[in-house]
Amino acid sequence: MSTFHVELKKTVDDSYEIEVGRSLTGKPAEDLKNGLIGSCRRFALITDSNVEKLYALPICRQLLEAGFKGEIFSFPAGEEFKTRTTKAELEDRMLEAGYRRDCFVIAVGGGVVSDLAGFLAGTYGRGVPFINYATTLLAAADASVGGKTAVDTPLATNLIGLFNQPKKVYIDIDCWSTLPAREISSGLAETIKHACLADREFFVYLEEHMDRILKMDPAACEHMARRNCEIKYQVVMKDERETGLREVLNLGHTAGRAIETLSGYRLLHGEAVSIGLIAACALSVEMGHMTGEEKERIRNLLKRAGLPVGIPGYIDREALVRKLYTDKKVRNGHLRFVIPNGIGGIVEFQPGVFAGEVSEETARKIILEMETQV
Amino acid sequence: MSTFHVELKKTVDDSYEIEVGRSLTGKPAEDLKNGLIGSCRRFALITDSNVEKLYALPICRQLLEAGFKGEIFSFPAGEEFKTRTTKAELEDRMLEAGYRRDCFVIAVGGGVVSDLAGFLAGTYGRGVPFINYATTLLAAADASVGGKTAVDTPLATNLIGLFNQPKKVYIDIDCWSTLPAREISSGLAETIKHACLADREFFVYLEEHMDRILKMDPAACEHMARRNCEIKYQVVMKDERETGLREVLNLGHTAGRAIETLSGYRLLHGEAVSIGLIAACALSVEMGHMTGEEKERIRNLLKRAGLPVGIPGYIDREALVRKLYTDKKVRNGHLRFVIPNGIGGIVEFQPGVFAGEVSEETARKIILEMETQV
Repeated sequence: MSTFHVELKKTVDDSYEIEVGRSLTGKPAEDLKNGLIGSCRRFALITDSNVEKLYALPICRQLLEAGFKGEIFSFPAGEEFKTRTTKAELEDRMLEAGYRRDCFVIAVGGGVVSDLAGFLAGTYGRGVPFINYATTLLAAADASVGGKTAVDTPLATNLIGLFNQPKKVYIDIDCWSTLPAREISSGLAETIKHACLADREFFVYLEEHMDRILKMDPAACEHMARRNCEIKYQVVMKDERETGLREVLNLGHTAGRAIETLSGYRLLHGEAVSIGLIAACALSVEMGHMTGEEKERIRNLLKRAGLPVGIPGYIDREALVRKLYTDKKVRNGHLRFVIPNGIGGIVEFQPGVFAGEVSEETARKIILEMETQV
Repeated sequence: MSTFHVELKKTVDDSYEIEVGRSLTGKPAEDLKNGLIGSCRRFALITDSNVEKLYALPICRQLLEAGFKGEIFSFPAGEEFKTRTTKAELEDRMLEAGYRRDCFVIAVGGGVVSDLAGFLAGTYGRGVPFINYATTLLAAADASVGGKTAVDTPLATNLIGLFNQPKKVYIDIDCWSTLPAREISSGLAETIKHACLADREFFVYLEEHMDRILKMDPAACEHMARRNCEIKYQVVMKDERETGLREVLNLGHTAGRAIETLSGYRLLHGEAVSIGLIAACALSVEMGHMTGEEKERIRNLLKRAGLPVGIPGYIDREALVRKLYTDKKVRNGHLRFVIPNGIGGIVEFQPGVFAGEVSEETARKIILEMETQV
């Protein structure tokens, strides 16, 4: 018997830039010409049917004009298409078109596109570079920092995927003006969540500027987009593999994801998170970490952002309690929640542990007491 | 417009041990009990129908006895099952059985199992640890160093996958004695390839010990397994992302993979590589980098190892020439081959460039002149 040691220690630099601004469709071509990802000339632009004509086409055109080769690979818009099947179909279309390992992927769209395209890029030819052009507020808030990519399966959301850092992220605020109001609100839910978990001052800013933000005031939107990235970065940087601190980003997601699934995706992700955030606040009040007034302020801000704060009447609350057990934070059969500590902080249950056990009884009590969304 | 810099520079240590020995089925349980991958207690043992009863079952039993929880996930043996579909089915079975991110994967089998299970582990919950128990000579030679994992698609071999380093590799030489003779020969093809590209002395060792190796002499087998790992490690270490030097491992694979595909997988991978190696030698002789005698020595060693050295009669040689263009080394429509430099070296065409352009005319001439395997 003998042992052979494979020494594989190395330094990797996955650093990248996020550019926040208006009308950035010409920027990818410009940055790529300036060598953003070396000499690679062939792109696969992955997008969905919502975004294809509005943004993917102009970006593609400018890439072609700049001398790059490539085409658009579009799939039907919607979370229900964020699947292994869509990924395989896109891969086959790229293979048919002759794409090998000497290409890069540019994702143009919201969170579904960046999740799917980032995952695809991470496994195409065992990994090709990818660039993320975020066209929604939600993608700006959620998908631009952290490197999480994934698809859904019938039995789990976001469980098949990988960590894959983009080479650059563009957040084009002008795109937001073409979003339906519900999509804007949905994105604001993650923003309000960020404020709640990390930054009381930012929460106050949102209270003061919510009307301007809803009117797409450029300065307010840019500040918000930037602060979102900063908060997420601070959390993610300290814990890239989501072991401890990163769990704080799951604030509102325990009940939120269960509600999202039980709604059969009638609720948008952010809408479900908004309701889940209220549930987490109610638990916090119950546990003595938040006052009723603080909870009310959060509820008001969510409402002003156009978000639901009660559970839809069509969702069975007992089914919801049962569904909580499919959450990834469940350990040894015990429910665990991220609990806000007032506004702007998270309860640290033990050093480095930011999700605390909640008995089924308490969870049920909170769920049953929540208002019904009409 | 503003830019936000995401700083993500870090040191990662993917080092691991390869243990070469006999009857190692109890070792994984022992190493895991000693904390090989921390406190993780739940395993998914992925294997195929060939290996399940012989090796997976005893390994599983010992893991259970050591207090770990888990079960066997088996799929039908054969390269044709190394697909996205098999991966998705295994994922769904694991999800159904309640596996989340707090598990690890142990692959027990040959190259197909380790390729598929390593890929699955790399994307399950965005990556769970995995251990590789190699039961074939080919897996020992090919899959234990390098971290390459992948599945096949109708349009490409090994193009969808990722780099994922195992936490430990076991090479159990005793398993080889239960392999069919063809499988042993197939594994020897990669071994002879390693000797040809890197180590003349090892080539001479193989010439001198081939009979013992075929009789599964433990000392000879262990030396061979170890030298295989060392050669591959030296190449891979210097070039983990397969940009330049690592291409040398593709020796024999340009024609080899084309022949493998055109045979409809009637040929085993190593058998096809053997024929591809002869093609590369013929090109080398043609280009003046190898003598006819050296080519003859390589041909003899391959034959003694029980490998084919001619193209099967059922393969259309013009179709083979066309198929060469699907090779991943093709650039701007030009064929590129890794060319042996005598025995024990590779031609370096330019500094860091180990694959050279070959005209279709030359490639066709070599292919047409090759002997027919009867």
